[in-house]
Parts: sequence; C-alpha cells; structure tokens
Amino acid sequence: MGYRPSIIFVLGVFINYFYVTDVLAKLTPTSRVCIIGAGYAGLAAARHMKNNGLNFTVFESTSYIGGTWRFDSRTGTDEFGVPLFTNQYKKLRINTPYQTMEFGGFPFPDGTVSFPSGVCFYKYLQAFARHFDLMKDIQLNSQVTWVQWTGEDWNLTYTKSDTKNNVTEQCDFVVVASGEFNNPYIPKFKGQELFKGKVLHSHSYKDAEDYRSKRVLLIGGRATGVDLAVQLSNITSKLVHSNHIFRTFKTFNPPNFPETYINKPDLKHFTPNGAVFEDDTAEDFDIVIYCTGYKYYHPFLNHLSSGITTSESYVFPLYQQIVNINQPTMTFVGVSKEIISKILEVQAEYSAALAAGKFELPPKDEMLRQWVDHVHTLRKEGFRATDVNSIGTNIDKYFATLHKEAGIQMLPPVFNMMISFDIKNILEDLVNFRDYDYKVISDTQYVKKYNPRQEVCPFNT
Amino acid sequence: MGYRPSIIFVLGVFINYFYVTDVLAKLTPTSRVCIIGAGYAGLAAARHMKNNGLNFTVFESTSYIGGTWRFDSRTGTDEFGVPLFTNQYKKLRINTPYQTMEFGGFPFPDGTVSFPSGVCFYKYLQAFARHFDLMKDIQLNSQVTWVQWTGEDWNLTYTKSDTKNNVTEQCDFVVVASGEFNNPYIPKFKGQELFKGKVLHSHSYKDAEDYRSKRVLLIGGRATGVDLAVQLSNITSKLVHSNHIFRTFKTFNPPNFPETYINKPDLKHFTPNGAVFEDDTAEDFDIVIYCTGYKYYHPFLNHLSSGITTSESYVFPLYQQIVNINQPTMTFVGVSKEIISKILEVQAEYSAALAAGKFELPPKDEMLRQWVDHVHTLRKEGFRATDVNSIGTNIDKYFATLHKEAGIQMLPPVFNMMISFDIKNILEDLVNFRDYDYKVISDTQYVKKYNPRQEVCPFNT
Repeated sequence: MGYRPSIIFVLGVFINYFYVTDVLAKLTPTSRVCIIGAGYAGLAAARHMKNNGLNFTVFESTSYIGGTWRFDSRTGTDEFGVPLFTNQYKKLRINTPYQTMEFGGFPFPDGTVSFPSGVCFYKYLQAFARHFDLMKDIQLNSQVTWVQWTGEDWNLTYTKSDTKNNVTEQCDFVVVASGEFNNPYIPKFKGQELFKGKVLHSHSYKDAEDYRSKRVLLIGGRATGVDLAVQLSNITSKLVHSNHIFRTFKTFNPPNFPETYINKPDLKHFTPNGAVFEDDTAEDFDIVIYCTGYKYYHPFLNHLSSGITTSESYVFPLYQQIVNINQPTMTFVGVSKEIISKILEVQAEYSAALAAGKFELPPKDEMLRQWVDHVHTLRKEGFRATDVNSIGTNIDKYFATLHKEAGIQMLPPVFNMMISFDIKNILEDLVNFRDYDYKVISDTQYVKKYNPRQEVCPFNT
Repeated sequence: MGYRPSIIFVLGVFINYFYVTDVLAKLTPTSRVCIIGAGYAGLAAARHMKNNGLNFTVFESTSYIGGTWRFDSRTGTDEFGVPLFTNQYKKLRINTPYQTMEFGGFPFPDGTVSFPSGVCFYKYLQAFARHFDLMKDIQLNSQVTWVQWTGEDWNLTYTKSDTKNNVTEQCDFVVVASGEFNNPYIPKFKGQELFKGKVLHSHSYKDAEDYRSKRVLLIGGRATGVDLAVQLSNITSKLVHSNHIFRTFKTFNPPNFPETYINKPDLKHFTPNGAVFEDDTAEDFDIVIYCTGYKYYHPFLNHLSSGITTSESYVFPLYQQIVNINQPTMTFVGVSKEIISKILEVQAEYSAALAAGKFELPPKDEMLRQWVDHVHTLRKEGFRATDVNSIGTNIDKYFATLHKEAGIQMLPPVFNMMISFDIKNILEDLVNFRDYDYKVISDTQYVKKYNPRQEVCPFNT
C-alpha cells in the first residue's frame, strides 16, 4: 500500500510539464535562427533577430528581397523556374497609410504622401535592409523545400536556384515568413470548362493597358477586386464586376463608374462566351480575372515534419497565432491575415524575444487551452470556421497581450484607429481615398487632411 | 496573357483535394489492420474488422484481454515490468445498465441483473472474444512503443514483454484503442510534500478491507469517488471526503452515511498529519486516495509520427472524434470519454467501415472545418476548453450522423434515455441504484423495476 508512482505517471508528467522549457532552454547565443522568406515579414524578423544579437540566416527563393512588393513583368516562374512570388501590378498604390506599414525605428520622412506607390514601398524595404545591414545574412536563390524536426533541432533543406543542388542545414529556431499571397484561390463554377476566353487570377495581372478595349469579367470585391475595377473601368470596352460589396458593406458608396461598368451578383454558371449570374441575367466577355484571394501554402512542412496541421485554409495549433505549440522553436509571421501590416513586425519581434530566451511560454497544455478558447471566441465573434488564424475583433488587446507577455513594443491604438477609418474611407470614396494625408499625433490620436498631390518617393533603389 | 496554371496552384489542388482519397484508396482486402489494445474498445474493433472480412492483428501489452476489467491484486507493473492497465477493485459493480455496455449481437441473457459485478463483465468480454474467435488474432505481451507513418503505411513497433525484443511490423490501417483510464491525474495542492501519511490514486485501490479502521481522505466526487465513499464509509474509522458533488449536482441526495463520514469542500493545503480545506476547517488522516481521474496517454505516437497533437488533455484533430484528419488511415476508439460504453462499439464499427472502404471521407479541409465547428459548439454548450474530445450534449445526433455517413448500426435513443435516468438515480440513491432491473422495450422505450437480488453471472471464465 502507499504511494507508488508508476512509470506511466512519471513519464506523463515529464512529457507535459518539462517539454517546452526543455526544448527552448537549449537555445544559446550561438544558436542559429533560420528565417524562410525575405519579404516584409522575413525582413522584420531578420532585423529583430539582429537587435537581439542572434545568429541568423534568411533563405529567399528568388533573386531579390521584398517578396510581393517588387514588380516583375513575368508571370509563372523566373529564369530559374522558381515561382514568382509577387502580386505587384503597374500603378498600384498602397491602400493603408504608410504609418501602419512602416517598421519601428525606420520611418518614412515627414511629408511623404500617406499612400505611396508599390514601387516606392519596395524601395523602402530595400532601404530598410541596407540601413540595418541585413543583406549579408540573406541568402538569395535558395528555395526552401523541406523543414524537418530531427528530435533535437531543425533540418532545413533548400534548392539552389541556379545549380539545382539541394543543401541541408541545421537550425535551432525557424521563423516561417514565406508569404500569405502566393497560392491563388480560384473557386469552382459550373461550366468553367466551356468558357472559350482567357482566364487568369489577379496574381498574374500586371498592367491595365493589357485590357484596353477588351470585355472583362472581374470576380471579387475585396481589396484587389475594387482596385482593379477602378483601374480597368475607363480602359475596357465593358467591365462586368461580380461581387458582394453591396451585400457585405451596407455603407459602400459606389464611384461614378462609366456606363460600360456592369455590377453583378455571384456567378451562376459559365457559357462558351460569357456567364449567367445569380439574378439570371447573362453577359458576354473575353477575359475573366479572378480576384478571389489566396490559400495557405507551406509545401516545405507538414504535420510529420513540424507538428503543424497545414491545409489551404488552416495553420494550427499556433499559440498567439505565432508559436508552433507542438514544437515551439518554430514561429510563423503573417499567417493571421490582418489588414494592419505592422502586426507582422510585432509577430517578428515576439519571435525574436522567444528565440533570445527573453520570456517563457506557458506549458503545452495551457497553450492548447488558450488556442482552443481562441477558436471558440472567433466563431462567437462571427468569423467562419476557416478563419482560425484570425486575431479576432480586438487587435489592440492582442498587441497589449504580446507586449505584456514578451516585453516587446506596444503598438498603440492609433494605428488600428487609422486603419478602421481608412476602410470606411475606401468604401466611401474608392477613387480618391488615397488623397488624404494622415499624421500620428499621439498613441490615441491622428490628424487627417485632404491633400491630393504628386508622389515624391523619399527612397532610392 | 491568359490562364497559366502555376506550379504552386496545381500542387495546392493536388495536396488538398486528392490527399484523403489517395491514401484510403490504396487499402485492399489484403491490407493489414493493426489494433492497439485488447480491452473493451480493441475487442469491439477486432470483431467489426472481422465482420468486414479484414485482415487484422490486435497488439496487447499485458498477458490478458479485457483491459481495465480484469482484477489484479498487484499495483504498478506486472511480472514483466509492464504497467498494469486495470482499475478494478474488489466488489466493484458496473454503474450503468449492461444494456448500454453489451456488444450488438452478443447480449447478456435475459434475467441477468442489470448491474453485474466487474468480475462478471470481465467474463462477458472473455466469452465475447471466444464466441467471435478473436483470440487467434490477438497477440498478447506485445507492448506497442511507437507508431510511425512512413509516407506509405504505418510502422508499428512493439516490445515483447518476456524477451524484451523490439519488433517492427507494417500496417495499412491503425486503430488506437489503448484505453482511457491508465494515466492517473493527481492535482497539485500546496504542502503536498509535507504530508507524512500514505498517498495513492484510485488506480491502485484494490480492496476496502485494506482501509479498515484507518482515517482516510478521499479526493473527488465523480464515479470512483462516490463509489469508494460508499465502500469505505462503514469500514474506516474516519472518512473525509473532499468533493464538488453538491455544487455540481443540485439534485444530489446524500446517502445516510455514518457519523464518521465528513463531507468537505476543496482542499486548501496539506499539513504533516492532514489538510486544511477551503472552509478553513482542518482534519487529520492517515491515507489520501485521489479519485481524480485520468489523463490521455499515447506515448507511442506524437505529432511527428502521426500528425496527431497529443497531450494530457487533448487528442486532435479528429474527424467525428474518430479519424486522424492528417493521416486518415488511423482511427481512435474511446478518446471521447462518454458515459455510454456502447459509443466505443459504434466508433469501432465506423473504423472498420472506413478501413473496408464502405464510405468516403470528406476532403481534408472540410473535415477540419467540421472539427473547428465542433470545438466551438462544445464551448457554446458549456464544456471546458480541455473537453475538445467530447461528443457534446446531443449524443443521439452523433449516432445518427455516423449511421448516415458510414452505413453502420444506428444506436437508438433508448440507450441514452437509460443512461440519463441512471445518472439521476445514482445521485438520488447512491447506495441502492444498482438494485433496479432495466429492460429495453423499443428504440425509445424501456421499463425499470426495483428488484434487489443476488447476482448470478451468466458467463464462465
């Protein structure tokens, strides 16, 4: 009689309570951090790893930094056969004020227009990388193809674009910053195979001029859908726009589109020369452009290599939408597709603080409990089941929580306030919303004035 | 211009849409099913695999079948050093009518008392295995230590208890039926290390006589806690019972315990000779018995081997609380700790129908969507975050859904009706609730009469 701790009990305690601490405690200042991707998220991660004195390498599949922000006239793949991970098109301007996109400690100069061009934002990212001397730790033309937990650390395998050689390197900590917008989502419609015209996703859209005097169907009414509607409406001979904007946003004030713009509800089925819509009207057109968003894309990892359940709609379980709960020496920057870009820098800084051992994670079961609760809260707030990676409605609380937990920067409410107004402004004046200048006054205050003018980009290539 | 399906898009479609079908389509009638555990769940799985003409082996770590149902006077490990996976104690009787526990097609004879002894239920399981000739496909003394997806099938490694040799075999389909009640959960209380008396978990409780004239603290008021309270109250010199029953069940009608029974709220902290409780009263005692339940225990798999996130509180993501969504040639029978035992047979039959290719699973993303929705529903229904494996409040809907999806038996509502009343009856008359005889009349009707009598077990060893 008496207390005989059984083997299984002792083992159970070991697995559950000492698991996280064990793995992270092994990290030392000489440990190596590997960052996948040198876009906005990867550059932010690199800068904060550097700030923390950590030894890091960024693996970038293409021959340039800046991810989606560099314009490339090609579609599909580059000269090495590597997918072109950019969605830039000519005359693109950012759609949220630069203040919600610039990195802490590296501001746009005062006087910059609040909505510079995509070209200018790309130059900003280049200047950022130069300023913090990040380029020497960025390994270009290195497409990560596999990330595998070995039981002690990570094996990261990449293919050199030019030689096609596969190389495997060892990493103690991995940051997945591989982009949110590189795997186009195309919904299935009846009769799609009957349509004889051209079909593309906005991922391959480059220049409005390509569509001059054409009859075009745009599908989708989110950021890209409405932006292309404005770009194309005065160029095409007919622009059919199938969208939900009016249904989703009661406050949407449509611009004064020309008569050749035709607003339509959901598509019912394609025909050889056009389509029939849910209101049983039909339209003919030559080209379809799907502005229907992107799916998650992490071909270099799966549950067996990393403990992460990945699919086109899901990445989980992640603590704070950042940390791989099953293997907490892996973090994700940017899977929580939020409008405010600065969230990526916050997640990058949190990742760096974790890698540097500046704070401790809760035990695995507690992280899982919080994750399950978050999934529930999202549904309660009206999110779809596929939105498990969202932050939810209270993004300021999220920033406050990360700040408190990891001792990182506290993003003040003013950024969310600016974004919230910006969205209203987009819906109210789709054509001219970028002609406002925003200026942050305090943590909870900004000023805005109408100030249409020519952009002068303050950064050089 | 035009539609150029990029490599990544095509790959994305492949991974997500053809994934599940591909893996399961490879199963043929000669494929091999491996079942882990020869307890109630494993025997049910074996029988239904056999019914479907499938080739299967059951791997059982101990030298007997019946899992938790065989009495063993030893605690800790057996003669081979293998953990004793049984929780039986002397004079245990089942606490739900046998009708909710018997397997379809192998009934208890009419006239059996509705609540036979644990000994009798163990004999029933032995008779079941003999009747369906299952023993020749059960490999005893084979403790499964690792299950690993190879990319094509499963490698299952087990240790032979006698020789300690490790053997790895190949399986096309794995059923995890390793038991819900083998990893004792002991909460942490302040001052636990100060207490000088004996401490055990009910997992090691064998016989009320061991506690005659002792001063005992029982912690817990669920099935085991209340059962031991009844067993011990007339034997101990003092029985302190720390529990939530009154708070959880407003309808609880306490039995007429002797004066030596002392009901207490939660424990605040231990002292060298006893404990102080939340009401600031103190009691001395010699022995503590934790009736505080069990944690999940799947040491033979983790996320890297199987795609399943396991911890002491969680097993996910599972479709219908059965199918490993990340690797759907693996199912779980019994992780949804429900009171109605027949749910295990339903899950076993569903597993067999899946292995036999009798139905197709939805695409991975749809299974994940349903799982996320279920997690949300559970919280909405008031379950704790740690209860992600529960079925929820509508178990009849669950049975109907599985029936419709997989073409398996439809468990009629009468079983849930009997269980529901049985729980009320336990709370109302803890000492005598087993003296009722239940009889199923139709799918939605049963009769019950008070009929106290001696048990005659209709099965022989």
